[in-house]
Order: sequence, then C-alpha cells, then structure tokens
Amino acid sequence: MGIGKGAKVGNVNGVDVKALGETCDLIKENPELAKTQFRAKNTWVNGGHNKISIQGYYAAGEEQQNRKTPFEFDADEPPPLLGKDVGANPVEYLLTALSGCMTTSIVYHAAARGIQIDALESDFRGDLDIQGFLGLSKSVPKGYKKIDVTFRVKTDASVEDIEELYTFSPVYSMVSKAVPIDVKIVKV
Amino acid sequence: MGIGKGAKVGNVNGVDVKALGETCDLIKENPELAKTQFRAKNTWVNGGHNKISIQGYYAAGEEQQNRKTPFEFDADEPPPLLGKDVGANPVEYLLTALSGCMTTSIVYHAAARGIQIDALESDFRGDLDIQGFLGLSKSVPKGYKKIDVTFRVKTDASVEDIEELYTFSPVYSMVSKAVPIDVKIVKV
Repeated sequence: MGIGKGAKVGNVNGVDVKALGETCDLIKENPELAKTQFRAKNTWVNGGHNKISIQGYYAAGEEQQNRKTPFEFDADEPPPLLGKDVGANPVEYLLTALSGCMTTSIVYHAAARGIQIDALESDFRGDLDIQGFLGLSKSVPKGYKKIDVTFRVKTDASVEDIEELYTFSPVYSMVSKAVPIDVKIVKV
Repeated sequence: MGIGKGAKVGNVNGVDVKALGETCDLIKENPELAKTQFRAKNTWVNGGHNKISIQGYYAAGEEQQNRKTPFEFDADEPPPLLGKDVGANPVEYLLTALSGCMTTSIVYHAAARGIQIDALESDFRGDLDIQGFLGLSKSVPKGYKKIDVTFRVKTDASVEDIEELYTFSPVYSMVSKAVPIDVKIVKV
C-alpha cells in the first residue's frame, strides 16, 4: 500500500502526514518530482582513515541549497584491522545507513496508516569473515555473510503490521538485493 | 591476489604492510581469527530523526574493548522529505559507507602490492526515485537505481592496477550483489 489521499491528516510519529500525502499526490501528477540524487565526496587521509563530506542534493525538482555547512564524517579501521580508529569503519557505516533507513521507513509508513509508534529501538549485527576482504579465500563473501536485526517497538499495532513497513526501506532494498555500481577511475 | 607472505615490508600508504602480512599469515593458520562482528544500535527520536551508536565489536578472536566512548551519528531526512535535516539521511550514509570502504580497499591492497598512492579523492552520486520508497509504484526500485563513482587518484600505477583493488571492498560487494538480512521485531 502506498501513501496518498488515503493518508490520515495530522502529525503522527512526528511526521506531517498531511504534507506527506500532498507530496505523494504531487508526484502522482508529475512523477519527475520523485527523482532525487544524493552525493558524497571522499578524501583519503592516510592508511584506513578517510573523510566524507555530504552537502548538496537534488530533490523535489530542483537542486536544494538548504545546507549551509556539510555533514562530515571520519572513516577508519580499528586497531585489529591496522587502523587508528579515528572513526567508525565503513561496514559500521553500512549498519548506520541500514538502521536509519529501516527505522525511518517504519515510522513514515506507520504514520501514513495512522499507526502510532511510542518507541522504537534496534540492534544491528553483521558477521563478516575478513578472509574475503583480504583475498585469502574466493569462496568467502567479502561483505557481511548475514545481518541480524532486532527491532524493539512500543505500539498498539501488531508485529505483522510493523513487519510490512520496513520493506519500503531503500537501504534495506539495496543491501538485500543489488544495485548496479558504475565506477570510473581517472588519474590526476 | 590475496595478501600474505608476498607483501612488501614497511609502511606504504600509511598501512603497516608487515603487520598486514602477519595478520594474513595468522589467519591462514587459523581461519577462525578472520571472524569479525560489527554492530550498531539505533534509537528513534522523532519523525525522520534517529540516533546511531557504534562501539563494541568482535575481531581477532576476541571481543574488543578499545573504544572507551561510542561513535554517535544522527540520521534525519532533509526538508523535501519532511525531516529537519538534523543529520545526513540514510541513503547518504550508504554512500559514506561505500566511499570509505572502496577507498580503504584500494589503499590497503595497493600497499600490499607496493603501489604507492599519493592522493585519492572520489565522488559518489546515487540516483533514487522516491516513488519506490513511497509505495507509489511497484516497478520503481526502492533503492538507488544506479550509483556513479569517480575516483581521482595520484599514483604511478596504471588505472587497470587500481581498478582491480576496489573489488575487494566488503560494502561494494554487498551493495553490488546481495546479503541476506534476517529481521526480528519484538514488542516491549
């Protein structure tokens, strides 16, 4: 079930459901408005340490300018992976992305259906065998073999009602399925 | 080609290549040491805003205790997606993860092969049609349709030599292929 005219009016779970329904109705009239682009710039520092900067994005039919300063992150590896642990490591950022996206998907789609969420917490655990990354075994997956997710939700709705909602998550969809990645390398 | 006894000795690209080779040799003797687990805890705040905390992890055969304080992140949605932009959004965190992982994979595997990287920057752009997330179209993918990556690398090695290296990236592998995700929801 998508979001649209059927959406309840008001603020549910901190989501402006009226605005959400209006956004959906505008997109139904003009699907071009659904096209968004998000971006990240990465600058390597040293060893496992690199910096990520996130600022500009395209949404609602235009380049958005509301971010006066970028969001900035450090990625590094912990000492057992020969880094200095200046920041979370990339596979931890993947769990960050996945947890944020599944949480928001539950909250927004619950709001659209009038389901009130009183509290929502979750734990994400990813099991990884670094023989894959190190190139020591071709049969070992390079990424997580499995990600275990536990949501703890306080709501009057049923578990079944909540379960359906996280499947709208873009990051969940990408990690559980696949996305083509086009890579270009240029020398400077 | 994996990393191991063939690795050059010394510090290349800020990576202790001797330690990297030793790590690989230990794992070859005892593959159990390759098992790692990374974790994230997510706490929903309101609307599109949630907080991610990252601290404990398992690596090198034991639970690691070196992080005295957690890495903490805010995820939110920007105004066109009805959030308050308190933090980067989850699909931006995905690009953060992907860029960090591909960068580190290039740097580490280059180091193991004695390839010096003098500078490495990259841009990541993900195109997403929010009709998928909103449930307005079943034929539109929920995640990025495509991610465009441009690396700018300063090195004496060839582009072909560098291209091979990012394929070791766990996040690249996960996003470009798939990983099973097991989700559990409990009410509290």
